[in-house]
Parts: sequence; structure tokens; C-alpha cells
Amino acid sequence: MSSNIQVTLVQIDNYGPWTVTPEPRREMDLQTLQSRLFADVAQFVGNRDGYAFSTRYDNMIAITNGMDEDDHLTLQETLRNRYPITVSLGVATDSVPMMALTKATNHIQRSGSAQDSDRVEVFEGDTLDESDRSSDDLYVAHFDVENATGKYTNKLNEFETFNKLTRGYSSVMDYMQEFHGALSFFVGGDNYISICPRLGRSSFEDALEYAADEGDVELRVGVGSGRTVHDAGIEAKHELEECRHCDEEVSLGFPYEAKVET
Amino acid sequence: MSSNIQVTLVQIDNYGPWTVTPEPRREMDLQTLQSRLFADVAQFVGNRDGYAFSTRYDNMIAITNGMDEDDHLTLQETLRNRYPITVSLGVATDSVPMMALTKATNHIQRSGSAQDSDRVEVFEGDTLDESDRSSDDLYVAHFDVENATGKYTNKLNEFETFNKLTRGYSSVMDYMQEFHGALSFFVGGDNYISICPRLGRSSFEDALEYAADEGDVELRVGVGSGRTVHDAGIEAKHELEECRHCDEEVSLGFPYEAKVET
Amino acid sequence: MSSNIQVTLVQIDNYGPWTVTPEPRREMDLQTLQSRLFADVAQFVGNRDGYAFSTRYDNMIAITNGMDEDDHLTLQETLRNRYPITVSLGVATDSVPMMALTKATNHIQRSGSAQDSDRVEVFEGDTLDESDRSSDDLYVAHFDVENATGKYTNKLNEFETFNKLTRGYSSVMDYMQEFHGALSFFVGGDNYISICPRLGRSSFEDALEYAADEGDVELRVGVGSGRTVHDAGIEAKHELEECRHCDEEVSLGFPYEAKVET
Amino acid sequence: MSSNIQVTLVQIDNYGPWTVTPEPRREMDLQTLQSRLFADVAQFVGNRDGYAFSTRYDNMIAITNGMDEDDHLTLQETLRNRYPITVSLGVATDSVPMMALTKATNHIQRSGSAQDSDRVEVFEGDTLDESDRSSDDLYVAHFDVENATGKYTNKLNEFETFNKLTRGYSSVMDYMQEFHGALSFFVGGDNYISICPRLGRSSFEDALEYAADEGDVELRVGVGSGRTVHDAGIEAKHELEECRHCDEEVSLGFPYEAKVET
Repeated sequence: MSSNIQVTLVQIDNYGPWTVTPEPRREMDLQTLQSRLFADVAQFVGNRDGYAFSTRYDNMIAITNGMDEDDHLTLQETLRNRYPITVSLGVATDSVPMMALTKATNHIQRSGSAQDSDRVEVFEGDTLDESDRSSDDLYVAHFDVENATGKYTNKLNEFETFNKLTRGYSSVMDYMQEFHGALSFFVGGDNYISICPRLGRSSFEDALEYAADEGDVELRVGVGSGRTVHDAGIEAKHELEECRHCDEEVSLGFPYEAKVET
Repeated sequence: MSSNIQVTLVQIDNYGPWTVTPEPRREMDLQTLQSRLFADVAQFVGNRDGYAFSTRYDNMIAITNGMDEDDHLTLQETLRNRYPITVSLGVATDSVPMMALTKATNHIQRSGSAQDSDRVEVFEGDTLDESDRSSDDLYVAHFDVENATGKYTNKLNEFETFNKLTRGYSSVMDYMQEFHGALSFFVGGDNYISICPRLGRSSFEDALEYAADEGDVELRVGVGSGRTVHDAGIEAKHELEECRHCDEEVSLGFPYEAKVET
Repeated sequence: MSSNIQVTLVQIDNYGPWTVTPEPRREMDLQTLQSRLFADVAQFVGNRDGYAFSTRYDNMIAITNGMDEDDHLTLQETLRNRYPITVSLGVATDSVPMMALTKATNHIQRSGSAQDSDRVEVFEGDTLDESDRSSDDLYVAHFDVENATGKYTNKLNEFETFNKLTRGYSSVMDYMQEFHGALSFFVGGDNYISICPRLGRSSFEDALEYAADEGDVELRVGVGSGRTVHDAGIEAKHELEECRHCDEEVSLGFPYEAKVET
Repeated sequence: MSSNIQVTLVQIDNYGPWTVTPEPRREMDLQTLQSRLFADVAQFVGNRDGYAFSTRYDNMIAITNGMDEDDHLTLQETLRNRYPITVSLGVATDSVPMMALTKATNHIQRSGSAQDSDRVEVFEGDTLDESDRSSDDLYVAHFDVENATGKYTNKLNEFETFNKLTRGYSSVMDYMQEFHGALSFFVGGDNYISICPRLGRSSFEDALEYAADEGDVELRVGVGSGRTVHDAGIEAKHELEECRHCDEEVSLGFPYEAKVET
């Protein structure tokens, strides 16, 4: 039936002021703290078959189907016990990823400002009941660039390559958000991952065409579905390998294609 | 005097193929690996008063004034000993940051493709002699958004906030690159750091005006200089605090302002 | 009824040879690798309400009630994806901790030598069925030293303090193993944790007396029970706080004491 | 010349009370925190060619020849910026390792109790002047057990192996301390590292004989010297490889052996 996405917003409590109190802190210590905090969130969520994206680091977006309230509270506890900061969590579900995130964000926003020193370790929202979950709740599209190494990495300087890719992807990510309510994230190298609602092949063909026209970048995309975002994401990766081997632009997991009415 | 920037490009050897061999790997494990690798590079470089930026994660850009060849080789060794991957390093110096990066990138590119399995742990390029270093080799501009929490974080959903900021910054970062050869990086929250050549106050005023007009975002910027990028960066952070407290848009460290002819 | 302990032995595959191939590796890189690997195992197991102990680092002992085979396989996968080494896992259950460990160790030993390069990522053994679990499967005794800071840390040099404590504990740990089949581990500072079968108050009084006589060290102990080792361990910590506040030597959680026939 | 060892004691400030305030914290979070803190200290010290040993985790012993006061202050700063705890540092130098540690410990002890909440980030003591350093300031002995895998790991259960080795080593480590003022530490697997003063071959032969008689364990040892503990340690590891290949019990680096009068 329709997609069913549980989104958790992870927001560091009152982080901005902390970074400059009592004095501005060493930038590389902040970078290390943020990266390791994200890595810990990614591991915690990831080995429960969820995904986390670093986004702005002080705010991280996670896809958490399969994680219940206890899991969320344990995450808050383990971070509080090991870091000099705490996190608030908002969680919500919807068939459209953007909508789920908006609800999750609202849960936190209603509890106070991100820079309110009294707002500590909020947990608000609802997680999916096991009985409401099904085998195709999640749809993941994994994009990469055709021959990015040959075209960019080995030719341009790294700052130019980074900007070129960021810009190229920007168009298609906007497209995916505006037309489909998808949430898309850069995940390193030349890879983007899009958390989508259920879509047919033509939607992805249109997206790639848009990327080529507006973003001047030639993309490929593998799409998968599953009960968890990890299941959907691994299928998407296999489909992307399929694209590479068969020189196709779009590849969708079979069971997925069958059940979609475009 | 002119600025004098030592840039190191850190490139994971043959990373793309590794991520899908023998099967595509769990995305959250890749995210964890990349983030922790970056954190380790940031710590290594940072506690020698350098800066590292995560960029694409498989390619990281570091500012390394004060690190010699031995330091670079130790970095390669310690990563090889603890991670399932290795890194190549290209290092170069110039008065213009972009130019230093281009040279550093070239050093690696000339040694083979990023996806050449025979190209392992290249170290190419030259580090600064101690005798060529001076107390204002580095210039750092630290930008943030006026009241980002009130305007965005507490109002929009996190994906929209992220996109809004990314887009707003995009214009000013292009401007800094095109007109001044600066390298600018997102460092989390609503913060960007720009590694600049020597510039006067009016250059930054122009940049902020450009950001407001083209990027629809109101920025502030603190600028500092120093013998190391950490010294320059800490001064820039203090100047940015100065902006916040005195409600100014641009603040430059005094010794810096004195010696610049705009 | 009786205790019911699921033990997992985590053994790095062929680690010794790796540390000296092709050349002996930097000791601090090995220390970092081992400590972080243990930290990752501790987090993975710990946020599933299990415990892991660092033991010899290349062999770690974990108490894993509540973790099924899938959890174990995910642990193997996530380590393989991020470290230059792999691990084998043996798992077994018994009412006596030592016996469970012996079985778990046997599972791995039967699959080949720890230094057999062909023995990779063994998973052998059986996990507890949910239906076989109960609310007092685990018993944890948490020991510390009366006024260790005043007696040792603030007076002796750190090496002497460490040796004094190690030696003092050695006697009681032997006692707990020999008479009760308990597994005891140093967990930092002046703390030891003992995974025990069900025991009455007098058993712990005897152990402390033995420690004072043979090990010349005055200990306190809090004891807890639970469905998971985390539950039992947290109760033990609270009981130890009780000892501190009430100046008692032994404190047992009430429900526990009630159900024990000494 | 005589040996010349700079020792730094790293002590977490007021750690015990923190672990139980406001409530006892999850044990696996404490384990993770301690292990990662140690790993960070090991990396910081290690990539400056020093060594750190985990000891009791809330107190760590480091050998820091080559690190000056600024390095120590940077270590304090980077830990404070990223962890919920702070550390005090005492540093001292002597030709006898135990004596250097005693002085380093005294520096911290004189500044207040380890559980005094007002004693925060003490730095006391003196580092070596560059002019006082020489190419054989450090002597490292690296011990392991002959065929530990065959005799123990593949035969006993892991707890028994751990105890057997701990006990075996205990005798020789006491011997090294009592007769030579050496500091010896377990570093994982079946390996111990001893920071020694300058000693001749016969001293090590006596130590191994003592281990066999009193500790019932057959050891080998490689010994190296150098300007830094890393240099000495790497030579010791190569010498230990030499023992393995040539079936010797003791192997000393040549330049070392030449300059020792036994």
C-alpha cells in the first residue's frame, strides 16, 4: 500500500551557546565532537536497521522504523552519559517523508527554543505500532554520478569537484522534494540517498532528466523497498550496482515495480 | 606580507569500489567509518593547530601550516593501522588558498586515479620551511546567520532550514572563491568558515551584501589572522562574538586591519 | 529459580600475526584500535542491556541475555565493515557463569585455532529462547574499596595503587570463581563486577572476609538481580550506594534476598 | 649515559562521584567513555611518539618524552571540549621510571584530593628540555608468552587463560619493579610492556627465570632503546620478532647491548 515513514529529529540542546562558553572552543574539537556524536547516532540507529543523516550536525534527521520509545530513551541516556551535551528527540510518522519530518520537528519546537537552556532532553511524539508495519513501508533511492572519478575527481581540484556535485544534485533534490515530498541527503563521495514515498520508474527518469538539464550532471539511480530503511537501502544499492553493470540509468527492485501504479 | 597557506588533500585510496566489495556494505557502517575517520584526521591535524574539513568524506581538505613531512607520514601510518582503508596525501603552498589546493590535488592526480587499486598511500608535495612562516600566514573568516535559531530552527522543518542555509551560503561562498580564491566550508549549525587571502573590511562588507541580495540570508562575519589556522580561527571566533555583542556585521582583529591595504 | 546466563566470547580472528605483519605496528595504534573496538562492542551489547568486558582485548567476554542470533551476526558485520579485523563469536547458556563461558569458548575452539588464517567470523552456539527467560536470570555483584581515594589514590603512586588493588581483588575473585563459578572483572577505578549465580548474603560476607584476610583490602558489595545483566547491574549499583550511605558492607536488593535460600 | 624518563600521570577529576550522580550511570556507557578517553589519550600521546597505558582508566600513566607543557595543555583542552569530564596532569622526569611516576603523582596529590570538586585541570611539574634529551633516554622491554595460543587460548576457557597469564606475569612484573624500578603494563593478548632503566642481558634472563619459577609461565622478551618511547618500543618489537624466528628467549638491540655495563 502506501509508504509509512517514521522520522526522528535529533536536536542538540542549546548547542550554539555551549560552543562559545566560556570562550569559543577549538574548531577541530567541535568538529570531532559533532562527527563522533553523529557516528554514535548512526551506529545506534543503524544496527537497529534505521538510517541517520548528519544534516547540520546540531540537528540530525533519522529514519527509525522499528525503534520504539524505549530505544529512543536509551539513545538519549547513552549520549548524556558520554558527551558534554544532551539531545532532544521528536518522532512522527507519515506516508510522505517531508510531512513526517515536519511533524517531528513540530514536536520539538512546541517544547521550547533550540537555544532555551531550560529545554533539556525532550522526547515527544509517537512511534509506529508493530501491527501497523508492513514489508514495503520504506522506499529508498540511491543516486550516484556516472564516472565521477574520471570526470571530476581525477581532473578538477577537490573544492571544484565538491561544488560541481553539490550544485548538480541540488536541482534533483529540490525536484524530489517539491514533487514527491522526498528527503534527500548527501552521504559522501558522489552519493545521495533519497527517502521517498512509493514512486514508479517514470518519476525517477524525470528526475534524472531534470538533473541533466538543470544541474548539468548525469546521474544513475537504484531504488529499493523494505520493512526497514536498511532493507530498502540495501536493495537500492544492489539495484545501483545493476545500473553500473548493465549500463542503465534507473533500476528498481522487482517486487517494488510490480506493486506500483504510476 | 602576503598570506601563505599550506593545504593537504586527504584522499581515501580506491574507496568507491571498497564500499561495494564483495557486496554493498551497510550504509550506516559507511557513515560511521567516514565520520570517525574524519574525526581522527580533525584531531590529528587540529591538535597541531591545523584545520580539516570533511568535504566529500572520501576526499578531505586540510589546512596544515606547521605540519611537516614526518607528521604527514605518521598520519598515513596511524590510519592504515586502525582502518580497513588507506589514504593518499598531496600537499602544497600558495598565497591563494584555491591555488594551493589545485597544486595539492595535482600532486595526487599525477600519481594515478583515485580508483586505481595500485595507487596506495601516495605522499607528494612540499611543506613550508619553518623559516618561511610568519605571524600572519593565515586569514580565517567565520560566518554565521543572524538569529538563525529564531528565524529558521524554531520555525521551519529541519530539512527546509538546512536547504535554506545551504542555499543562502552558496552565493557568498561562490563570491569568495571567484573574487578572492577563498576556500569555504560548512562546519555545522549555521556556521561557515572561509580560508581567505589577506582582505580588507570592504571585501567582507561586499560579500555580506551579495549574500543578502543573491542568497536572501543575513550574515555576520568575524575575521582573524595568525601563524596557524587555529590562531587565525580563534581570533575570527572572538571577532564574531564581538559582532554579536556590538550588533555589527563585520569585525576584524585589530592587528590584521592595520596591516591590510584594501 | 536458578540463574540463567548467556555468555558470548568475542575473539579477534588471527590477531597476533596481524599486529606484526608486515612489520610490527605502532603500539599506540594497537591500543587505540583495541580500546575503540571494545568500546564499540560495549555500546552494541550495552544498549541491548548486555555487558561486555575487555579481558585481554583480543578476547572479550560478554553477557548477552536478550541478544539473539541476528544481533550477533549484525555485530560481526558492523565490525567487519569498519575495522581492519574480523571477530568470531561463540555463545552458550548455563546456570553457572563459568560453565556458560567454557561452552562458549569451546564453540570457537572447535572451529579452529585463534591463529588459523582460514578461521574467519565463526558464529557457533545457541541463544536463549524468549520463553526461557525470566525476571531473575542474572545476578550481579558490584564491589568497590572502602575509601580507596583516601587510602591509596591520594597517598601512593599510581602504579602502587593499581598493584595494591589488583592484588587485593585477586583473592576475592578467585574465591568467587572457585566456590561459586562466578566471572569477575575489573571495570576501572576501584570497581570490580562479578557475574554470579544466585547466592545468599552470607556468601558475600564470606567473600569480603576472605578479601580482608588474604588480600588485605576492605571491600563493600552491592548485589542486584534482573532479567538482563543491565537490570541486575543497575540494582547492584544502587545497593552499593546504599552500603556507602548506611555504612554497610553488603547490600542486596530486596526481591532478591527474599527468593534466595541460603 | 643513564635513562631519562618523562612520566605524565593523567587523572580524571572527581570521577567517582560523577559516575553515580545524580544516579548510577549505565555501566556500558562508563566503559565506553573510559575506553574512548584512553584511546584519545593514546592517539594524542602516541602520534607524538609517546606511550599511554590504561592502568585504572580514571588514572592513566603516560611516557611523554618529547611533549612539552604546551602539548600537555592542549591535551587538557581537547578533552575538556569533548567529554563530560576534565583531567589533571602531573609530569616529572627521572632516570628510574618508578621514581618519575612517584614525583608526577606527588605533583597532583599536593594540589588536592582526586575527589575534591574544586581541584580541576591541575597541571604541575616540569618537562624535559630539548637540550637534556639523548638518543637512548628510553628503554623498553616487550614480553610475550611462548605459544600462548596453543597452550592457553585454544585449550582453556577465556577467563582461565586471562587469569593464568595475569598471574604468570604478576611475578615478573613485581621483580622488574622491585629490582629495577621498572613500570610494567599489560597491553592485550599475551603482551606486557616494561619501561625500564638501562639493564644488561643477564637482568632479563634472571627475570624470565623468575617468571618460570614463580609464575609458571615461559616468556620471551625483546628490548630496545631510543630517544622516544616509540623508538625504543618499535626496536623492542623487532627484537621480540627476532626471538620468535631464532627461538631465543632474550634479544637486545645491538647499539643498546654495546653501551650497557652490566
